[in-house]
Amino acid sequence: MTGVPAALREEVDRLKLEVAELHALLPANGLVVWTAGNVSARVPGADLLVIKPSGVTYDRLTPEAMVVTDFAGTLVEGDGAPSSDTFAHGYVYAHMPAVGGVVHTHSDFATAWAARREPIPCVLTMIADEFGGDIPVGPFALIGDDAIGRGIVETLSGSRSPAVLMAHHGPFTVGRDARAAVKAAVMVEDVARTVHYARQYGEPERIPQDQIDSLYARYQNVYGQK
Amino acid sequence: MTGVPAALREEVDRLKLEVAELHALLPANGLVVWTAGNVSARVPGADLLVIKPSGVTYDRLTPEAMVVTDFAGTLVEGDGAPSSDTFAHGYVYAHMPAVGGVVHTHSDFATAWAARREPIPCVLTMIADEFGGDIPVGPFALIGDDAIGRGIVETLSGSRSPAVLMAHHGPFTVGRDARAAVKAAVMVEDVARTVHYARQYGEPERIPQDQIDSLYARYQNVYGQK
Amino acid sequence: MTGVPAALREEVDRLKLEVAELHALLPANGLVVWTAGNVSARVPGADLLVIKPSGVTYDRLTPEAMVVTDFAGTLVEGDGAPSSDTFAHGYVYAHMPAVGGVVHTHSDFATAWAARREPIPCVLTMIADEFGGDIPVGPFALIGDDAIGRGIVETLSGSRSPAVLMAHHGPFTVGRDARAAVKAAVMVEDVARTVHYARQYGEPERIPQDQIDSLYARYQNVYGQK
Amino acid sequence: MTGVPAALREEVDRLKLEVAELHALLPANGLVVWTAGNVSARVPGADLLVIKPSGVTYDRLTPEAMVVTDFAGTLVEGDGAPSSDTFAHGYVYAHMPAVGGVVHTHSDFATAWAARREPIPCVLTMIADEFGGDIPVGPFALIGDDAIGRGIVETLSGSRSPAVLMAHHGPFTVGRDARAAVKAAVMVEDVARTVHYARQYGEPERIPQDQIDSLYARYQNVYGQK
Repeated sequence: MTGVPAALREEVDRLKLEVAELHALLPANGLVVWTAGNVSARVPGADLLVIKPSGVTYDRLTPEAMVVTDFAGTLVEGDGAPSSDTFAHGYVYAHMPAVGGVVHTHSDFATAWAARREPIPCVLTMIADEFGGDIPVGPFALIGDDAIGRGIVETLSGSRSPAVLMAHHGPFTVGRDARAAVKAAVMVEDVARTVHYARQYGEPERIPQDQIDSLYARYQNVYGQK
Repeated sequence: MTGVPAALREEVDRLKLEVAELHALLPANGLVVWTAGNVSARVPGADLLVIKPSGVTYDRLTPEAMVVTDFAGTLVEGDGAPSSDTFAHGYVYAHMPAVGGVVHTHSDFATAWAARREPIPCVLTMIADEFGGDIPVGPFALIGDDAIGRGIVETLSGSRSPAVLMAHHGPFTVGRDARAAVKAAVMVEDVARTVHYARQYGEPERIPQDQIDSLYARYQNVYGQK
Repeated sequence: MTGVPAALREEVDRLKLEVAELHALLPANGLVVWTAGNVSARVPGADLLVIKPSGVTYDRLTPEAMVVTDFAGTLVEGDGAPSSDTFAHGYVYAHMPAVGGVVHTHSDFATAWAARREPIPCVLTMIADEFGGDIPVGPFALIGDDAIGRGIVETLSGSRSPAVLMAHHGPFTVGRDARAAVKAAVMVEDVARTVHYARQYGEPERIPQDQIDSLYARYQNVYGQK
Repeated sequence: MTGVPAALREEVDRLKLEVAELHALLPANGLVVWTAGNVSARVPGADLLVIKPSGVTYDRLTPEAMVVTDFAGTLVEGDGAPSSDTFAHGYVYAHMPAVGGVVHTHSDFATAWAARREPIPCVLTMIADEFGGDIPVGPFALIGDDAIGRGIVETLSGSRSPAVLMAHHGPFTVGRDARAAVKAAVMVEDVARTVHYARQYGEPERIPQDQIDSLYARYQNVYGQK
């Protein structure tokens, strides 16, 4: 291992703490079981990322347990093998410079849409707010080469949505930082569930495009604290 | 900011405590994710309300974090931008003098009915008790002007129900105080879920109107402690 | 109030503790929201029962808050109005001498079957074990006279089941003591949910009657600690 | 009782602790209600197993409460009657030498598929990873003789899956140790739920067999820490 550059030490330690704390939000929000799911953060100013080790249960994901890798998934710091999804995270960072955080889960309802390869239609103001339109489906891709990463990047590049439903697999979400990506992971499951229930007794109408645009612009620019 | 009148100081502080505690009931009852949802209370004797700040997560909603605004949503006291739904809450207080509390959530099952623009039929004694009949649907309205507030007021004015399902958006509930509005938010989700499941294998019969009237009168007048 | 006879003092205090603790199992098992639901215990050797007060939230249901009434629901000891379902509980104790505990909830899936007036068919070994056959539906009855109590007693008298689904209302369960009635309330919701899901893609076959009889006999006589 | 051989004392005590802790994961993961469900571990080097006592609630399942039996279910050490499913566990250990742990639950969605006698099709990468193909259904078998054990062994012998859905009853899972069997119990419920939801709006395609093989090989050999 080449190790973390000294100039990034403090930032990497801060990110390990943040990524560890954000992992706890996945089971707390009912998005994962056992060791499934992962959160990563880009290390600003370096081709490095912080992620959890592979196959470790959520109660053991302390800041010290987090690992650092390069964008090819090669271990740079840490005691365990990195998450087996690390290469997909790295591909996203390498190809989407504005992305600072990536999350992957198998959350039930989002994965149900993904299993059918069906996008989630924009029938709720909450979808317009956060996703800016329909939530798209990505290709079916096997783990092991760059197919998953490419599928994520190509799908998200043509969309405002920070979430993509990878076919037969589950959602990946991105954000300007890891916390924003976790937020998108929480919200994609919530709207996947609500629309699943809604359409059981009649297909809800899509919100007109100009009103989606208006809702999205307000939420991205006005909502929250400045 | 003009500030809170000195004569209302004690009452406003009491309401900040109450509204902060009531916010904790929204995630505890599974009605909200992330920063969605809000509870407000009218300040008796003034055109003021207490509500949460915009885009703040539930674990940070202490009494001190609550903000005070007038009915147009202008900040009167507090450190953060008020909830982006504040103007809708204010409109309700301005036009429904008996209302002392307002709650808004995107709870899954109530929002599913709202996405289809379908009222919840009064097929359970629990609906007759609390809502006095079918739970009505309000119009689709964009955030930003008084359209949401007007939709709530116009829909609730023609109904005994303390809950309205705003189309493609989610439920708003009202009560004589903020606690009663939270109760209605909890119950509308519970009955939305139960009736969703009930009708999957055959449409349940509506309870006859005279029996709805009888159940509603008893629950409003006899139930609970005097 | 006539008060609790001195000879029953110790037993009544023990039952208040037990009934208070059992109430906590209703929200812990997801069977109730807000103030809905209630548990009672018969006071052995007297026409008395212990139950919760009306409209009080679960976090306040201490042993001291429990009330004692006769079988007509008249308050004998305690500070609050008894649960508005007390008369139904009392009717059951008056007419079913082997029953020592009664529970009522509006748990979602059991109430969904009740809304359709549809019995839960015995398609699972768990239903055969605990309920000894289909779980029956009782009549639609308004609160206020003995109609609910009579509906429970008449339905359960023709069945091995400790649970009855009261139409448009929710489940009532009975047991040799209050704990057994709570167990039946937990299990009726669990099987109501499982069979709801099971039949979505094809109606499961009913277990043959002789095998139901065999499972029921074993579970009632062999299961658990002697 | 013949008792535990002195040479196995330490190992049996370690397994009692492990089996007690693993039982706590069943309610924590929403797989069981009341006293349903059980976990066992094989005692290496002996025809013995460690399991919970029958009909005891989860909050009382301390290491000391665990019991030791032989593969015929005869009590060897402990104060209570063993789980009524002990004979089925013992049959599995006697006939599947590689199995070190067995779990049984009535988890809702897995049991729903079992009630219809329908295997869970391999339409998710998570199913390919953990189960290596469709999750099979076992026969309907009454408790009391070796029919359940035989049904489990015969079904699992023809499959890579560590889970079998016993008809009208619920899932049994196996693993190299008790923890692996609990993991399979958690995952079979998760995928049973996701595929249940997925197919509601169109049957998802099965993953091609060669890709299932590839996913399964990777997950079994590469995933996790070495």
